[in-house]
Amino acid sequence: MRAFIVLGHRVPLTPDFALNDLPGSAGRLDVLCRCVTAAFCLSHGIRHDVCVYLVLQNQIVIRLDGSRLKRLNPDERSTAALLQKALKAHMEHPDREIESTPGIFVAPGTLRDVLDALASPHPGPGVETRSIYVLHERGAPIRQFELSSEVAFLLSDHLDFHPEEELLLSGFTRLNLGPLSLHADHCITITHNELDLRSHSTGLFATQTRLP
Amino acid sequence: MRAFIVLGHRVPLTPDFALNDLPGSAGRLDVLCRCVTAAFCLSHGIRHDVCVYLVLQNQIVIRLDGSRLKRLNPDERSTAALLQKALKAHMEHPDREIESTPGIFVAPGTLRDVLDALASPHPGPGVETRSIYVLHERGAPIRQFELSSEVAFLLSDHLDFHPEEELLLSGFTRLNLGPLSLHADHCITITHNELDLRSHSTGLFATQTRLP
Repeated sequence: MRAFIVLGHRVPLTPDFALNDLPGSAGRLDVLCRCVTAAFCLSHGIRHDVCVYLVLQNQIVIRLDGSRLKRLNPDERSTAALLQKALKAHMEHPDREIESTPGIFVAPGTLRDVLDALASPHPGPGVETRSIYVLHERGAPIRQFELSSEVAFLLSDHLDFHPEEELLLSGFTRLNLGPLSLHADHCITITHNELDLRSHSTGLFATQTRLP
Repeated sequence: MRAFIVLGHRVPLTPDFALNDLPGSAGRLDVLCRCVTAAFCLSHGIRHDVCVYLVLQNQIVIRLDGSRLKRLNPDERSTAALLQKALKAHMEHPDREIESTPGIFVAPGTLRDVLDALASPHPGPGVETRSIYVLHERGAPIRQFELSSEVAFLLSDHLDFHPEEELLLSGFTRLNLGPLSLHADHCITITHNELDLRSHSTGLFATQTRLP
């Protein structure tokens, strides 16, 4: 299972934004939508072995679980509509986790909560602890770095990490994808490709569904 | 200069589509918008050394020239609005090339026209002829393939190449990016990254502008 944690620093915590204005009133929700597409969407299929955590203003976590995900299309607007539904569900039940549409869960939560959950050993014997890496311009080249199959990557939206986030992330290894500063969704695409090539060479294919 | 040619098989030839329905009435224009973003958009910047050719139904070519491009934002809707403007300009002047907004040119044209233009030797002494490659699931691994800096890549939208396109492309080398079948924009992102890493290692950086 691959996980991607994306920080949305300005995405609203309530669903009262226009789907016609994702870069504006929706606080660059377009960035997060493209991240979701990059994380899950294959040509005519969905990656089942992926989980995405969208951390909104360090207060709400929307978790998308590829093993249960349905109704996801690759365009920004329809993805934004699913995330808006999640925020609506959260308004109605702000104290607990809700599955707003299949595979999309929303709950109160912070970056620290997500990191704690991912870093904990999985239940059951023989299951690895997940390694967490920060994708960052100043990091070790990913192509020269050994990665396990249980791995999580953390990225920021269009804004740099806040000082308190930097502090929280200071213990994690930073990985770099190339010489230029890229959009978060492009980083996810490149990371997937790197891992796909490695899985392929070792015979461990990513699972996917073929859609009609 | 890197070029990307993307075939839009169902994108309308007139601007009468809704920006709220890019995957539907706009014939999957969302795919082409994401390709434009992947080709040009860096984090807080634009790649100047890129040219994109969108071939619509093998009848209209919209050319985006990174050296002149302005007003491009990374979200699908605003990119679709620029392409809609190009189609409006084409309706008014259907017989010649028009620059509808800075760096976006629209003209009647076919895939063969684009291939002929790109394969011709550039004017002036010492300028290389551009090599053209088809990005395809069944191709040689790009990481093991030597590429010049004057290079063009051809991709299809969500549909496979038509038989007449296959015939036209049969003479070009096919390059593969990985073991899974990917969206066109994800292919552009991975290709850029591969070339960025090579340029970096040889000291030839891609040019970019830093935006405010």
